[in-house]
Amino acid sequence: MVVKIDDVARLAGVSKTTVSRVLNNRGYLSDTTIKKVHDAMESLNYQPNAVARQLFKKETKLVGLIFPTVDNPFFGQLVAELEKRLFDSGFKVLIGNSMNDPEKEETYLKELISNQVDGLIVGAQNRDISEYHTSNLPVVSIDRNMNEDIPVISSDNYQGGKLATELLINSGAKHIINTNGPVNLKTPANRRTQAYADVMASHNMVPHTYVIDFNWDINKKERIINEMFKEYPEMDGIFVTNDMDAALVWRTAVKLGYKIPQDLKIVGYDGANSTRVLLPELTTIEQPIDEIAQVAVKTLIDRIQGKEIPAEQILPVKVWKGQSV
Amino acid sequence: MVVKIDDVARLAGVSKTTVSRVLNNRGYLSDTTIKKVHDAMESLNYQPNAVARQLFKKETKLVGLIFPTVDNPFFGQLVAELEKRLFDSGFKVLIGNSMNDPEKEETYLKELISNQVDGLIVGAQNRDISEYHTSNLPVVSIDRNMNEDIPVISSDNYQGGKLATELLINSGAKHIINTNGPVNLKTPANRRTQAYADVMASHNMVPHTYVIDFNWDINKKERIINEMFKEYPEMDGIFVTNDMDAALVWRTAVKLGYKIPQDLKIVGYDGANSTRVLLPELTTIEQPIDEIAQVAVKTLIDRIQGKEIPAEQILPVKVWKGQSV
Repeated sequence: MVVKIDDVARLAGVSKTTVSRVLNNRGYLSDTTIKKVHDAMESLNYQPNAVARQLFKKETKLVGLIFPTVDNPFFGQLVAELEKRLFDSGFKVLIGNSMNDPEKEETYLKELISNQVDGLIVGAQNRDISEYHTSNLPVVSIDRNMNEDIPVISSDNYQGGKLATELLINSGAKHIINTNGPVNLKTPANRRTQAYADVMASHNMVPHTYVIDFNWDINKKERIINEMFKEYPEMDGIFVTNDMDAALVWRTAVKLGYKIPQDLKIVGYDGANSTRVLLPELTTIEQPIDEIAQVAVKTLIDRIQGKEIPAEQILPVKVWKGQSV
Repeated sequence: MVVKIDDVARLAGVSKTTVSRVLNNRGYLSDTTIKKVHDAMESLNYQPNAVARQLFKKETKLVGLIFPTVDNPFFGQLVAELEKRLFDSGFKVLIGNSMNDPEKEETYLKELISNQVDGLIVGAQNRDISEYHTSNLPVVSIDRNMNEDIPVISSDNYQGGKLATELLINSGAKHIINTNGPVNLKTPANRRTQAYADVMASHNMVPHTYVIDFNWDINKKERIINEMFKEYPEMDGIFVTNDMDAALVWRTAVKLGYKIPQDLKIVGYDGANSTRVLLPELTTIEQPIDEIAQVAVKTLIDRIQGKEIPAEQILPVKVWKGQSV
């Protein structure tokens, strides 16, 4: 017997329209309704027909982007590149800067779903948001582990962390510190710290990772960085998980009388366009930002079209040689 | 006699619906239709009632932003701040990065109008786009003169240019160059160059303005900057119209063996957050970016609500003291 949408509606005790709204993620739906419909589909092993779905579905040609903030060289370039490629593929772009605010991210998400976007690309820095799980909207993530249904695009974080740490060790640093965001934030970027720890261990050095939360304001970051210098006076090398923080470490070090790279060697991460214009002296691990955008847009479009897509795509990094190592 | 929408429709020879679409700027309308309706309204001296308009109008709570690119510290911060304030006022944000491409800007504009945004905030770097004139959509401009109906928000460009040039003269520079975008781009930012010329003249110095187009890629900019150094070997001071270009001038100067500020004094313009973290040594004229965003959003909302708004709002600048002067 072929299971039909009527069967699902009957078992779930809702209308056919409601089932199609759940399938196509349109309009307001309570969590209870979504669950009832999903449960019914599961127990009947209902496989929505792609063509049938397409008939129901009103394409909006809108894609939502949720990132921490475009006031940052990395996310600014990434969002600009995503927008350019989505425009070329016929999509308009809704943006939401969710920085520092899981509630804001949740609001965006609800609104974007109700605005009937065709899909989402997200790379926010907040913790787990339940809406991503209950929605069946096509979502692609950049550098964030959400759930196993949501594909992740990222730079080769492990290789980046390895390259950074080896650069510091090979240039003679003996007391190397690493900074990273909070460890309970589920992001492949944590592999940078893992690689740092592994390389340190293989050289019989003790790893120390200092937490600098991306969402902190600049004053708080500066205070924490000052504390770090007090806590590790022997520090002569540091691998900082993003270039803005690396710049802050550099400024603080200079104020404290350090000479870069003689007294302290610094490696950053990201290598965005404007960073390389404004602070080309910073040695950093360059993410392939334009390629990440390209792969993310392609993956989202494939997902919208119901194609098979890889769960994870990792893109190669390279070293930008400045003068800070 | 009170003129009604029926009278306008009759005289224009169109339906009532078409008149309300022109009034509320909804759906596709040919230039001819818009003109016929406007002419009829004018000859009847028809005053659309705000409450009546509200009844027709379907608010979308969407605002479109058209800026050159968020891959730039100034526009990245500006768009982030606009988005934050629009979110707080209940609006979602559609973005378009129009850089280098008047056609793209035109496409955005058509699409945004057909997507029924409630309003637009624009600060693109392209030439005149005719759609802004035929549409009666609420529009606010940042640093761009469009037509007399569209209010402009900008920093005090004249005062900024004056402060920059005086800084250079007072620190002993004798041969001071200025850079700016193409003069035929209608932007209040040209007042920076006017102020530079005025201050130079009042000191009996000859002004030279070098054109660096914002839309050029970095290689072209570097080539032009290299030419500038060849053409003006006596240059010992420069007022660059944005900080990214100022950074390029600085890098080029250092490669050519100049010492900053001993051999060449540099003043930039913008003073965005990330520039001040990555290159705090650059002395620059700081625009009040957050305040510009705040005033632009307030002005747009006032305009959407049909309130009287000033044609131009100029916000004060200040000097960021780096080490390049």
